[in-house]
Order: sequence, then structure tokens, then C-alpha cells
Amino acid sequence: MSIEIVSEQRCHGGTQGIYQHASDATGGNMRFSVFVPPAAGDGKYPALYFLAGLTCTEETFIIKAGAQRLAAELGLVLVAPDTSPRDTGLDGATGDWEFGEGAGFYVDATQAPWSTRFNMHRYVAEELPALVEAHFPVDPSRRGIFGHSMGGHGALTLALRHPGRYRSVSAFAPIVSPAQVPWGRKAFPRYLGEDETTWRGWDATALVEDGHRFDGEILIDQGEADRFLEAQLQPERFASACRDARQALRLRMQAGYDHSYWFIQTFIDDHLRHHARALEG
Amino acid sequence: MSIEIVSEQRCHGGTQGIYQHASDATGGNMRFSVFVPPAAGDGKYPALYFLAGLTCTEETFIIKAGAQRLAAELGLVLVAPDTSPRDTGLDGATGDWEFGEGAGFYVDATQAPWSTRFNMHRYVAEELPALVEAHFPVDPSRRGIFGHSMGGHGALTLALRHPGRYRSVSAFAPIVSPAQVPWGRKAFPRYLGEDETTWRGWDATALVEDGHRFDGEILIDQGEADRFLEAQLQPERFASACRDARQALRLRMQAGYDHSYWFIQTFIDDHLRHHARALEG
Repeated sequence: MSIEIVSEQRCHGGTQGIYQHASDATGGNMRFSVFVPPAAGDGKYPALYFLAGLTCTEETFIIKAGAQRLAAELGLVLVAPDTSPRDTGLDGATGDWEFGEGAGFYVDATQAPWSTRFNMHRYVAEELPALVEAHFPVDPSRRGIFGHSMGGHGALTLALRHPGRYRSVSAFAPIVSPAQVPWGRKAFPRYLGEDETTWRGWDATALVEDGHRFDGEILIDQGEADRFLEAQLQPERFASACRDARQALRLRMQAGYDHSYWFIQTFIDDHLRHHARALEG
Repeated sequence: MSIEIVSEQRCHGGTQGIYQHASDATGGNMRFSVFVPPAAGDGKYPALYFLAGLTCTEETFIIKAGAQRLAAELGLVLVAPDTSPRDTGLDGATGDWEFGEGAGFYVDATQAPWSTRFNMHRYVAEELPALVEAHFPVDPSRRGIFGHSMGGHGALTLALRHPGRYRSVSAFAPIVSPAQVPWGRKAFPRYLGEDETTWRGWDATALVEDGHRFDGEILIDQGEADRFLEAQLQPERFASACRDARQALRLRMQAGYDHSYWFIQTFIDDHLRHHARALEG
């Protein structure tokens, strides 16, 4: 499990790096970014994973979210993978921003030909943490996860599928029920097949309905001026399922904010503090 | 003097906008960005102008510098113009990142054909402030200016050429003596002609040597791991001129930092506070 340094640059007293490696889960080269805060104490930090949305890469969050300043202060390592395998050469994998490269949806595909490469769930849940924990000063017992839009869906489903693996979870404008909205209903048949019962394992709302829980409060921020709110996001579906299941959820509707990283950077400090509280000590 | 809204988005309780307009100074359409903090008090804010470096646009600073959070708190309007006219159609204006489009050097060109369009000094010093002060809630008596690399050169020369126009000035990794380094010695003959005596009016170090002063302390941050430090930046030239002239300067060498916006975002808060102190009330 070796990694190659693409770049490492000083930032807020720490190091912002981009790395690449040969990935088993996705059958090709993957890139990810890591911010390591200034060295302090015993040098082991919690690792907070950020999953980005459709069309994004491992660079989007680190450039646009403004997270490093407070992460340096709080002592959080920030890890951001790419959103899918790249250069897959698969017919239909490029040219549509809602499916294929840049749109991995954090599932493990079961359908040919996607199942050979599009296994972002396994990549993010298993391969990437093993790699990060081998190469960076992080404490494997203190992981958090958050994300945006498709990546918010990824964060919620990973946290719900793997009890105990993450101490904290949050999301910005997440897709909370892909099985019920156009983005998911377009991508899931190709990745997962036509049997919709198999989709429930990749749908945060269905996971809560089916008994999965996260041991802690889930934080979600959602802009009210988000153009995807009504058709694709529908956070009330998840809120309703959490209410019925007594799953702790803090859903904050933010007046005037849209789906962009201007929205994310406005509330990033709240999310970092939410995670830091759960990841302390 | 009308402007067209390209986009306006909520950010940190204020508005991050991009605008375009027909420019007299540059003979074509120009874009600029404005961040307006949350409304408060009488609604008139100081305006802080940021000039970006080679290859950048009106979007670079607003996306990469992480300035809006503290600007919202301090009540600063942030204005960032593009770095040159665009779509000029002039032979030789594109294809070279060190000259022409994206490389206006904040001068008023005197040489054909560049003098028809490449008048970024007049644009930034006169046309843009008039436009901003007509359309945004800013106080014309409270302007500050800063910039990066080529834009640091722009900020220093504008502040030194126009006493009283700016209450505060600072720079990240500025070109302090373009007449003495390869970037300037390549661009200035084409914009300004072969007579090097005319270049002194566009060279911060020469301006100080020739008696120009800024009424206040100039702040400069410079990364020691900046790959352009020795050949292109040479801040000691400016420091030496300021020392001889008793011009107040605070030059901070920052160990480990390079020329990137990771460096800028690390020290942006210090610069915003430097300007806010001078721009208060």
C-alpha cells in the first residue's frame, strides 16, 4: 500500500497534500487530499473524511470550503477522496454529470460493467482509511465523516451502515433518499440493478426505517434557496424517518443559501466544531 | 455606468457577487467580484480592493483566499477585478502566461497596439472605484488595496502613485521591482517602450527612491519557500528603499510557505485586520 505525493504545501502551519495510489476497490489510480494540522502533542489526530458531490474531485473541498484554518486550530486531519474512479474507459462512464465518472454515489456497484470499478463505498469505508492510517498521523479510533449533496448521502449511508466506525457525522444539503428522487432513480438501476429492494441499503432514509442507527446527533444544514431542494434533496423525508425512529437529528434550514460552496464555507466552522466535540480525546 | 449581474449568492450572511460592464479604460467588457457583508449600521462600508496575479481572474481571490468570513465580521466590502482586458483579439495577447491577457501588470500601456486596451492602472484606480461607489454600499473616503505577486506590485504602485486615495495597503509575495526582474523586463518594453526611465513610475521600489510615500505602514508577507523569490520577487530591494526613505514597512518572511493561495489563506486574516484598523470610522 504505497502512495505517491502529487503535491505538499504549507497551509495554516500544517500541510495540504494531494496523493495518488493504485486502488484495489476501484481497479485504478485514485487521488485524495489530506490536510495535516501543525504538529502538537503526541502527533495523533482524529481524521475527518469529506465526501464531495457530483462533478467534484479531491480538490474541490480543499480549495472552496475554507476548512483548514479551523481544522489547524482544532487539530483535525481532513481527508477528501475523489468522487469516483477516473479514466475507466467504460462506455457511458463520461459525458453525463449525473452518472459515471464524478458521480460514483458511494455505492458498490453490482451490475456489469460498473461493478469492476465503481466501488466507492468499499474504497471510502475500507481501503482509504487503511491507507490514511498507515501513512498519516491519525488515530484509527477517532474517525468522523461528512459530505455535500451526493457526498452528504455518502456520509449518512456510511455512518448508518457501519455502527461504531465513525464517531461523528454531518452533511451539507445531502441527498437523503436517492431511491425516491431523480438523481438516484437514474443512477441506481445502472449501478445496482432494477430490484429496488436492494437500493434500501444505499438510502439513508430507508436505512433508518429499516432499523439502522447512528449513536450520536446527526447535523444537517440545508439552504432554503437551493435549486435542488424540492426535486432532489427533500430533507423532510429523512427528518420524518429519524423522528419515527428516535434517531437524534439536528436539521437546520438556512434562509437565502443555495447549493454552492459559498453555503458550505459559511457553515463549515459549525460542522468542524460538531465533529471536534465528538472526536476529542 | 450600468453593470450586469453575472451571479449573486449568499455567503457568511452577506452577498458574493460577480458583475460585468462595458469599460472605457480597457475598451471592452470587464468582470469584477464584490463581497458585501451583512447589512449593519448606516450600511456604508470601507472597500478593500484585491489585485490578483498572473493567470488569475476576478474569481481566483474569492474562491481561494478564504477572506469572506472575517470580512463579514469586520464589515469590509471586498472588490476583485480581473487581471487584464479579455478577448482583445490583439496579436500576441494570448498564449503566453507572462504577457497580455491575464498579465496586465496594472500599468497604462503607451505602446501600440497594447495602449488601446491594456490600461489596467486607470481601470483599477479610477473607473472601477467610481462604478463600485455608484452601485454598492461603500464609503468613497475609505478605500484600501492589496494584492498578490503581480497584483502586489499593482497594489504597491497604486498606493504610492496616488497619495490619499488609499488608507491602507498590503501585499502577498509582491513583485516589488518589475524593472529589475525578468517578468517586468519582458512585459514593460511591450507595454511601455524601451526607454527604461518611463518604467520607474510603475516600479514600487523606484517610486519610493524617487520620493513617493505611503502615509501609513505597508504590510508585506513573503514565503521563504516561494519558487519565484530569488529571481522575480526580491523583497529586499523594496525593504532597502523603504529603509533609506524612512517609509514605514513591515516585511514578514514566512518559513515554509510557497507562492500559492495556501500561503495567502494562511495570512489573510492578518491582512484584513491590518486594513480594518486603518479603515475604521
